[in-house]
Amino acid sequence: MTKLTWGMIGGGEGSQIGPAHRLGAGLDGEFSFMAGALDHRPDAGRAYGRALGLDVDRSYGDWREMLDGERTRDDRVDLVTVATPNATHFEITKAFLEGGFHVLCEKPMTMTVAEGEEIVNISKETGKICAVNYGYSGYSLVRHMKAMVARGDIGKIRVVVAEFAHGHHADAADADNPRVRWRYDPAQAGVSAQFADCGIHAMHMASFVTGQEVERLSADTISAIGSRVLEDDAMVNFRMSGGAAGRLWTSSVAIGRQHGLTLQVFGETGGLRWAQEQPNQLYYMPLGQRLQVIERGEAGLSPEADRASRVTIGHSEGMPLAFANIYKDLAEAIQARKEGRTMDPAANLYPRAEDGLRSMAAVFAVAESGKAEGKWVDARPPMFR
Amino acid sequence: MTKLTWGMIGGGEGSQIGPAHRLGAGLDGEFSFMAGALDHRPDAGRAYGRALGLDVDRSYGDWREMLDGERTRDDRVDLVTVATPNATHFEITKAFLEGGFHVLCEKPMTMTVAEGEEIVNISKETGKICAVNYGYSGYSLVRHMKAMVARGDIGKIRVVVAEFAHGHHADAADADNPRVRWRYDPAQAGVSAQFADCGIHAMHMASFVTGQEVERLSADTISAIGSRVLEDDAMVNFRMSGGAAGRLWTSSVAIGRQHGLTLQVFGETGGLRWAQEQPNQLYYMPLGQRLQVIERGEAGLSPEADRASRVTIGHSEGMPLAFANIYKDLAEAIQARKEGRTMDPAANLYPRAEDGLRSMAAVFAVAESGKAEGKWVDARPPMFR
Amino acid sequence: MTKLTWGMIGGGEGSQIGPAHRLGAGLDGEFSFMAGALDHRPDAGRAYGRALGLDVDRSYGDWREMLDGERTRDDRVDLVTVATPNATHFEITKAFLEGGFHVLCEKPMTMTVAEGEEIVNISKETGKICAVNYGYSGYSLVRHMKAMVARGDIGKIRVVVAEFAHGHHADAADADNPRVRWRYDPAQAGVSAQFADCGIHAMHMASFVTGQEVERLSADTISAIGSRVLEDDAMVNFRMSGGAAGRLWTSSVAIGRQHGLTLQVFGETGGLRWAQEQPNQLYYMPLGQRLQVIERGEAGLSPEADRASRVTIGHSEGMPLAFANIYKDLAEAIQARKEGRTMDPAANLYPRAEDGLRSMAAVFAVAESGKAEGKWVDARPPMFR
Amino acid sequence: MTKLTWGMIGGGEGSQIGPAHRLGAGLDGEFSFMAGALDHRPDAGRAYGRALGLDVDRSYGDWREMLDGERTRDDRVDLVTVATPNATHFEITKAFLEGGFHVLCEKPMTMTVAEGEEIVNISKETGKICAVNYGYSGYSLVRHMKAMVARGDIGKIRVVVAEFAHGHHADAADADNPRVRWRYDPAQAGVSAQFADCGIHAMHMASFVTGQEVERLSADTISAIGSRVLEDDAMVNFRMSGGAAGRLWTSSVAIGRQHGLTLQVFGETGGLRWAQEQPNQLYYMPLGQRLQVIERGEAGLSPEADRASRVTIGHSEGMPLAFANIYKDLAEAIQARKEGRTMDPAANLYPRAEDGLRSMAAVFAVAESGKAEGKWVDARPPMFR
Ligand SMILES: NC(=O)c1ccc[n+]([C@@H]2O[C@H](COP(=O)([O-])OP(=O)(O)OC[C@H]3O[C@@H](n4cnc5c(N)ncnc54)[C@H](O)[C@@H]3O)[C@@H](O)[C@H]2O)c1
Ligand SMILES: NC(=O)c1ccc[n+]([C@@H]2O[C@H](COP(=O)([O-])OP(=O)(O)OC[C@H]3O[C@@H](n4cnc5c(N)ncnc54)[C@H](O)[C@@H]3O)[C@@H](O)[C@H]2O)c1
Ligand SMILES: NC(=O)c1ccc[n+]([C@@H]2O[C@H](COP(=O)([O-])OP(=O)(O)OC[C@H]3O[C@@H](n4cnc5c(N)ncnc54)[C@H](O)[C@@H]3O)[C@@H](O)[C@H]2O)c1
Ligand SMILES: NC(=O)c1ccc[n+]([C@@H]2O[C@H](COP(=O)([O-])OP(=O)(O)OC[C@H]3O[C@@H](n4cnc5c(N)ncnc54)[C@H](O)[C@@H]3O)[C@@H](O)[C@H]2O)c1
Repeated sequence: MTKLTWGMIGGGEGSQIGPAHRLGAGLDGEFSFMAGALDHRPDAGRAYGRALGLDVDRSYGDWREMLDGERTRDDRVDLVTVATPNATHFEITKAFLEGGFHVLCEKPMTMTVAEGEEIVNISKETGKICAVNYGYSGYSLVRHMKAMVARGDIGKIRVVVAEFAHGHHADAADADNPRVRWRYDPAQAGVSAQFADCGIHAMHMASFVTGQEVERLSADTISAIGSRVLEDDAMVNFRMSGGAAGRLWTSSVAIGRQHGLTLQVFGETGGLRWAQEQPNQLYYMPLGQRLQVIERGEAGLSPEADRASRVTIGHSEGMPLAFANIYKDLAEAIQARKEGRTMDPAANLYPRAEDGLRSMAAVFAVAESGKAEGKWVDARPPMFR
Repeated sequence: MTKLTWGMIGGGEGSQIGPAHRLGAGLDGEFSFMAGALDHRPDAGRAYGRALGLDVDRSYGDWREMLDGERTRDDRVDLVTVATPNATHFEITKAFLEGGFHVLCEKPMTMTVAEGEEIVNISKETGKICAVNYGYSGYSLVRHMKAMVARGDIGKIRVVVAEFAHGHHADAADADNPRVRWRYDPAQAGVSAQFADCGIHAMHMASFVTGQEVERLSADTISAIGSRVLEDDAMVNFRMSGGAAGRLWTSSVAIGRQHGLTLQVFGETGGLRWAQEQPNQLYYMPLGQRLQVIERGEAGLSPEADRASRVTIGHSEGMPLAFANIYKDLAEAIQARKEGRTMDPAANLYPRAEDGLRSMAAVFAVAESGKAEGKWVDARPPMFR
Repeated sequence: MTKLTWGMIGGGEGSQIGPAHRLGAGLDGEFSFMAGALDHRPDAGRAYGRALGLDVDRSYGDWREMLDGERTRDDRVDLVTVATPNATHFEITKAFLEGGFHVLCEKPMTMTVAEGEEIVNISKETGKICAVNYGYSGYSLVRHMKAMVARGDIGKIRVVVAEFAHGHHADAADADNPRVRWRYDPAQAGVSAQFADCGIHAMHMASFVTGQEVERLSADTISAIGSRVLEDDAMVNFRMSGGAAGRLWTSSVAIGRQHGLTLQVFGETGGLRWAQEQPNQLYYMPLGQRLQVIERGEAGLSPEADRASRVTIGHSEGMPLAFANIYKDLAEAIQARKEGRTMDPAANLYPRAEDGLRSMAAVFAVAESGKAEGKWVDARPPMFR
Repeated sequence: MTKLTWGMIGGGEGSQIGPAHRLGAGLDGEFSFMAGALDHRPDAGRAYGRALGLDVDRSYGDWREMLDGERTRDDRVDLVTVATPNATHFEITKAFLEGGFHVLCEKPMTMTVAEGEEIVNISKETGKICAVNYGYSGYSLVRHMKAMVARGDIGKIRVVVAEFAHGHHADAADADNPRVRWRYDPAQAGVSAQFADCGIHAMHMASFVTGQEVERLSADTISAIGSRVLEDDAMVNFRMSGGAAGRLWTSSVAIGRQHGLTLQVFGETGGLRWAQEQPNQLYYMPLGQRLQVIERGEAGLSPEADRASRVTIGHSEGMPLAFANIYKDLAEAIQARKEGRTMDPAANLYPRAEDGLRSMAAVFAVAESGKAEGKWVDARPPMFR
């Protein structure tokens, strides 16, 4: 098995998510980091690329340069990650897919539903993978939840309760700080702030675990800090394709919460509860029995959970390993294509362009419903109606 | 200080809530249990009353008999608790208030908003106390939360998140069991099931702690078990009189949750989190600092918390002591009246007829909004608009 | 069933443990509080007794007066609680037993082993109950642990790990405060401080739950605050009559711990874990399976647990209800004697003089071993060797 | 900065700890995996090395071959990890140090104290780094504890309580399984089983965090499963160089515990508590104040903690990242030597040969004391007395 090669756009020095991608892509040794256009400032990007060990000629000043440079090489990178600010995702992802590259795009995949549909179509036409980084779906026990639901352990799903609450934008005195402010400004952030930034992770997870898509939703959005135009707290009710009802709360003003992504799934014959901050335990109650603690790494878990687990039980695995699982899936997907074989089904779990598109449709639906007193609106992208 | 005397209607042998009232009323030795009409079967009620130590002539067969019996005695009971099924609360409470008794009524206080308004009026006219048993507001740390909010520790409240989720009605096979079934049958339970049974506790607590009333709400109600007419799961968004936004989830199909009443309050300068199942710790984060664990019984808490605390720090105090705090408040309220003095303000926290009325208005608002696709409706009783 | 009557010695105004006894004795309405000698200052004691509702002639100035007064009454109290400082327990308990009263004595029952043996003998000779207030053994789930061990759920016990750690005496600046100081002064406290005060609770619980007695022990005792003569932190290893090994840590300088009494029991086929500060959950792992959460009040628990449980699942029951269970046992024991019948075996769990004696033997063994570099010493009272 | 190169001995296919080393060494991209003798079966080792991407000529059949091969190369590996079974550590580590390689040796570093002293001397003489993999000391918050203690946040340390309890060897029916059995057989495992395997991690952590060495100890060791010669449960009391007293419990029969490494440190002005299974929170109580939750990644932590932290607050970092921190320290130590500069003091935290030696002395002391009824014995290696 030859090692795959990998490149990144964005994720420059001091960026928030860049290090997690490098950790994730490098962790299992399946990808070698070979090319990058890491910064919006060409020089800074080139310098940082070289500092990270890239060759001079593959440490690019911008993504167009990188696209040109890589496209013509025999040893072009096998996968490109797009970790730039949101507004640039569409253009860059589109260009690389069309250039014949597999892409892992950060969320949100696009800024509009139409763009999302375009990416889905391009990905289909080119036959190139377009994955979207809903990295929390990489946790071993999240995948085990999905497997448990799929094999019927808790019966038909009745209610899903998802949360993503933090308090990192709660300081009104800091609200005008440009680092925070742009997120709540429609000119820069689009139609939604907190839901588009965090809520879509929770919503993706609800879909991922239940295997159902969100069809309709009703949202109550507020700007707890008055100077904000976009919402910093939202409650979304929804209905899913398999009949489940959903409740999703997201907030950036929840002082005392750090990164509170949690999921509860209630079916006809059992309930499940998981929290991102303590990801190595999954709470499971079979109807009429007792609450059980499922430990990551315990014997007898699903193949999907085992594949996404690296160290022995009782040792925590954290978020970088969850991210790495997305890359591990992609490595398998790419290798399988290279080798002309079917991929391991337990690896076929990375989020895709369709998920990115669905999130975008949900973002617009939340924004619309939020402005219309919680009117129920169709949350599906037109192409999936 | 002469001991006060106490009587109960309902709470017969095998009843769910009866023992908690006897515990609560007896705990501090302020009330002597002297009279009762404990069962809907006169003989069973009389026998059980005597078994509990009541005199033969005050162990009544029904509440009318008790009203007649007590009204004419010099040593009539100082307080009457109404712990019968919901549909009887109004009639009994009304009769005893008019008979000149102070009453502690179980929730829900009435079945309609009009009845609720009538009780409020009668209580005012007669000058008799009509308390309503939102017993969870009796916990020491819940009262401390209220005190912290009132003195501005977390600033102006932005968002309140309340939950009351359990899984005790999740078994579809058991749904036709009469013990469970009536609760979801409009003929017997009225316009709402889970919200009226549990949700109003959570909503009361949100009001109690923030000192704000619910003004408008939007509800998403579902019957997860198809044969049910009334809701077994509801999400309610609301707005409060002081500007806070609220989110409240209640469910009886949340398998794995036992008695999950929790409250999170987020203000401009801090956040608070409390859970009924672990009531002796309160989590507090001042903006920009660290999460702190406030322990029941620690030095330096508010007078309201201290008054509602009985044993030393590190020993848990549970629900019966919370109930007892409602009785302790009532004892002080009654004694103060007897002695013609102002009552201890730290005791002036028992929920009242107005709270019972507001809950009723919220129940009807939830039912209306739930049927109207989540339309925002006025949640205030007409008399408070 | 006539109500039993109860009296207390000590537990005066402002005392630490007095309120918990009144709560515990009164909670179920089985005992009426009728007599007391509550304070070491006769007048204060009489005044407080009357304030608590005692008749003038049964509100005594000291315990001898009370003994004389009660002994000659037809309606003498059925049970006397001794809640005075340690050094007085022996004399008072002895006098009341000899006077024909049932006694519940606070721990430690005596100051020497010889006194302990004397109490055991007197209790046997007089046929009077002498209970000792290891009140934490009253928790429903502690009793369930005992029942699980007894019926073999976790097999033969291998190791018991008990802890009672707090940090309330950790402040060196406060060490000379008389309220704290006497506890570490051999002249006033005897041969042991922290072990005698808290450690014996943990040791009693280890015996109570396993049904085994401590036979030999080795102790490492330290005075973390240098000015103290007696230990404020101790580690005790022991061996039990049924072959279990034990480890017990107790400390009063463990800053950050509140009232950390915990017990872990490991048998051949399972493990159990319980903590006093969260007493409504018991963690159980059957060998080779998953950790389960047993909830107080759940269906299917042992009769011992059910008897000691008052409110429905999901509501916490705290320490006052645990204390009340000791009184509930005693009420049943006394009633059964009055009625000439066998008592309910599920009530026959109150700690007795023998337990008090065993603790005393352990205290002396810890002190001896602690001074002798951890030499293993016999921990049994001579009369049980 | 050129990337460093790395080789491993042991850690072959299916080994327990091998994957964690590859993750740890590769995580930050500072080491390239270039050479290995991975298995005790030469062919299997060579094949697995190639499968992991090693060049054919650096995929060695055994460690002597690797030593010869690497020694003579210009691009010899910068660091060699020894992850073979315990009995081989000494010989291999010695040979590589003498061959001029920096070594990271798995614990226990040697089988005897004399061997340990030899390694310490060789490391000094050759000037080569000999690190020992007490990987749990790599957790960010463990390092923060150390920094807090060092800067006096909790004052002079009084008591340290360490635990490493699991239940993975509790099944008597499995005790004769060769995979488990050898661990309790002195012929194969040496003088100690559970203490040597797990206890030394806890003891190292106690020393690491307090900055004090263990001087004397007393041990109570038992074989809970009768057929075992060596201990499966031990309690060790100790005294440290700075005056702290220690208690350490370790067990492999604690059913229900997974990988229960915990540390509590109590000083004159504060207490700290940390648990390996939830490594992203540190509980801190300053004397007389409230328990605070310190989050990994929060602003304002020590440089040592920040350096050992990779992703943003609220995302868990697990054990592989702790291991990676040991490698990160070593990378910095090696680079600093190459560049002839002083290393970053915040990186100078990797455990060393001296720590490995001290553990070995403790292992023998525990064995000796355990056989001698807990006699207090000197726990220091002769060369440090
Ligand atoms: N999946 C997740 O959990 C997660 C978490 C955080 C952020 N994100 C997403 O990651 C993306 C980046 O977020 P961040 O917080 O790291 O932002 P950031 O501002 O910290 O970093 C962005 C980086 O991209 C570089 N950049 C900007 N424009 C560029 C361009 N045209 N070409 C090349 N580089 C460019 C910047 O120089 C910077 O280094 C966002 O879309 C965000 O939503 C996802
Ligand atoms: N505040 C709380 O937390 C809480 C908790 C549980 C129940 N409740 C409320 O308490 C009330 C009783 O609930 P429960 O679960 O104990 O019900 P239950 O059915 O267990 O008991 C009801 C009791 O009332 C008696 N009764 C019925 N009609 C009577 C009448 N006309 N006169 C005298 N006695 C009569 C019955 O014989 C029975 O003993 C309900 O209104 C319920 O909503 C409140
Ligand atoms: N079981 C437990 O969990 C627990 C907990 C705390 C205390 N205790 C025990 O309870 C006992 C009392 O402890 P405390 O903390 O309440 O002490 P305290 O000092 O707070 O109160 C002692 C009370 O006894 C009264 N008293 C003293 N001598 C008396 C005498 N000769 N006659 C009548 N009254 C007298 C005092 O006036 C005071 O009211 C101690 O033995 C202690 O070990 C047990
Ligand atoms: N630091 C920690 O937390 C930690 C955790 C687990 C294990 N360990 C230590 O790691 C070491 C290995 O433990 P493990 O559980 O991975 O053992 P293991 O038996 O699972 O694997 C040992 C590996 O070493 C190989 N090997 C054996 N002899 C060899 C030789 N002479 N040359 C080359 N390869 C050889 C084997 O083929 C196998 O691949 C032990 O010393 C153990 O104490 C440390």
